[in-house]
Amino acid sequence: MREAELAVRVDRIGNLIGLWDPAGSGSRPVMMGSHIDTVIDAGAYDGCTGVLAGLSVIEALRDEAGRMPTRPLALAAFTNEEGVRYAPDMMGSLVYAGGLPVEAALATVGTDGTVLGEELARIGYAGPEAPGFLRPHAYVELHVEQGPVLEREGIAIGAVEDLQGISWQEVTIDGTANHAGTTPMALRRDAGVAAALLVAWLRERARTGGSLATIGRLRLEPDAINVIPARAILTIDLRDPDAARLSGFEADLAARLDVLAREEEVTVTARRLARFDPVTFDAGIVRAIEAAARARGLSVRRMTSGAGHDAQMMARLCPAAMIFVPSIGGISHNPAERTLDVDLVAGAEVLLDVVRGLSVGRSSFSPAP
Amino acid sequence: MREAELAVRVDRIGNLIGLWDPAGSGSRPVMMGSHIDTVIDAGAYDGCTGVLAGLSVIEALRDEAGRMPTRPLALAAFTNEEGVRYAPDMMGSLVYAGGLPVEAALATVGTDGTVLGEELARIGYAGPEAPGFLRPHAYVELHVEQGPVLEREGIAIGAVEDLQGISWQEVTIDGTANHAGTTPMALRRDAGVAAALLVAWLRERARTGGSLATIGRLRLEPDAINVIPARAILTIDLRDPDAARLSGFEADLAARLDVLAREEEVTVTARRLARFDPVTFDAGIVRAIEAAARARGLSVRRMTSGAGHDAQMMARLCPAAMIFVPSIGGISHNPAERTLDVDLVAGAEVLLDVVRGLSVGRSSFSPAP
Repeated sequence: MREAELAVRVDRIGNLIGLWDPAGSGSRPVMMGSHIDTVIDAGAYDGCTGVLAGLSVIEALRDEAGRMPTRPLALAAFTNEEGVRYAPDMMGSLVYAGGLPVEAALATVGTDGTVLGEELARIGYAGPEAPGFLRPHAYVELHVEQGPVLEREGIAIGAVEDLQGISWQEVTIDGTANHAGTTPMALRRDAGVAAALLVAWLRERARTGGSLATIGRLRLEPDAINVIPARAILTIDLRDPDAARLSGFEADLAARLDVLAREEEVTVTARRLARFDPVTFDAGIVRAIEAAARARGLSVRRMTSGAGHDAQMMARLCPAAMIFVPSIGGISHNPAERTLDVDLVAGAEVLLDVVRGLSVGRSSFSPAP
Repeated sequence: MREAELAVRVDRIGNLIGLWDPAGSGSRPVMMGSHIDTVIDAGAYDGCTGVLAGLSVIEALRDEAGRMPTRPLALAAFTNEEGVRYAPDMMGSLVYAGGLPVEAALATVGTDGTVLGEELARIGYAGPEAPGFLRPHAYVELHVEQGPVLEREGIAIGAVEDLQGISWQEVTIDGTANHAGTTPMALRRDAGVAAALLVAWLRERARTGGSLATIGRLRLEPDAINVIPARAILTIDLRDPDAARLSGFEADLAARLDVLAREEEVTVTARRLARFDPVTFDAGIVRAIEAAARARGLSVRRMTSGAGHDAQMMARLCPAAMIFVPSIGGISHNPAERTLDVDLVAGAEVLLDVVRGLSVGRSSFSPAP
């Protein structure tokens, strides 16, 4: 960002924002952005694509002599989008958009017992700015799809019009540790077996209800081969683009936990880690994405985002939408994650066109009659 | 042991053996013993009871002036009976009895990546003696039952006549890591779900088949809340006192792993960690235990050991049997593990009587016609 001559500022939650204001207008910028943190054993494209494409867009516009944008352009790399160590995910943009007080976010204790604010200070990213210090005119995020739809349909550009709701919970099951060789099956209170039955139920419920359910973390205590597990701790990630269907799944899960506690004679407690309702993006920007793709001869379709993204938080602050490019094999959160260069360039060009349109001050991105 | 004036020797696998040979006969000793290692978050009685009671027996016999035993007495504390960090369990007695070469045991890599031989040297227990250096005339082990039978029936002493077979395996399930929000349920290869289905099947198979199955360890990779697990690694502990039933369970499990691999589109590999057939103890010593209990007015019953014990390894070397005392609530491998003082004393007195009988050179412990 410094090489591109952006004014770089860091806010208190570690969001990194570069500003290019060639006209010195000081007006609300058109913001691009995404994140540069990753999951464990991640691919190279998730997040970084949007940040690097945004940088390229600013460099390209700067080189267009005589076509200086009216509005400033800004580029954001938001903190902790993945939520691997600190919940909730999309934390940097959530705090930026005013959805979580920065003090609460900084006090978050991680899975490794560290405190987020202390870790930010340790790595030199506890910046001075108040989150939200730069209020955008609009926000556009380019991202790899991380799913199979675009590739399967042979389409180059996704105009993302909405985004799934997300419910994250941590469930703790307490049974009784006992000897594996002397405790009859009928007298066990096995927290591990109870967890396994819950995982199997979640898969079945997701399949029949049309939602998504993922159990990404599960650990047993005391974690010894010849000891019946006294405790199981697991995370549950539920997603659905339909708000009522997501709430219905959550209600069924709560009822199921009660049944499990009774049938397996275990104690079950659930703790909410994150909860985001489905989001509808700005219809004007979505139409601008479609128009820009078609003008460049690229195939395009409207779609729902299965993943959560910083754009859903920024949509609380300003008109926002997203551009998707294909993920090979639909693979993401995996070192095999990949997007073809031609698709990355196409996505960046659509981002360029949409941002250029927004930055010249036209208000054509607001909903049409 | 040194305070009790035993000659203390340590063998290459860290077994700690004290010898009392008041007559200087140099003949084969009557050996008592058990172990002093524990599981994680263990109770105080499992193992230590047998070692401390053996020490008390030697001290009591030493104080019986004029009734010097003909044979030497030995007391063993065997290495790594629990197998928490290094598999297989009962390793010290297994090596002592010649069932596993000491070099192979010393090369064992632990769950934490350490090498057993290096850790023994580090803690000062890589002794000079060849395992098995002292060949016993007979072996008797006092142990807490670790199960509910004696307490439930109000019986003071268990004369253990046989011991369950044990099968330990580690199963690794490989699927595909992918994004929790963008991967349709039908397209997932979820190693965690496959593991959960396996755990549920094992519980059902154990219940219907009359065997025991315990999944004490289970971990997921990459272990992130929003990533479908690429890998699950779990341990399976199967037990049955009937050799054919144990083999049948193992065969059904192998077949089930094939079905799981096909149905869930995952790769499944199983690795044997330990396998011990059921053991029948020496009938003469079992009768001697019953007789000693009755002579002291204690209630006694014959029983099967649900747990594995060092005595099953020593039974390869010499006539062997075990004495059980009640465990309150059947609880073991748990800090709440407890046995009443009166039961501990009763068990030690029966051990004293049986060892005294064996040490005066009578051979009455061999099977009666």
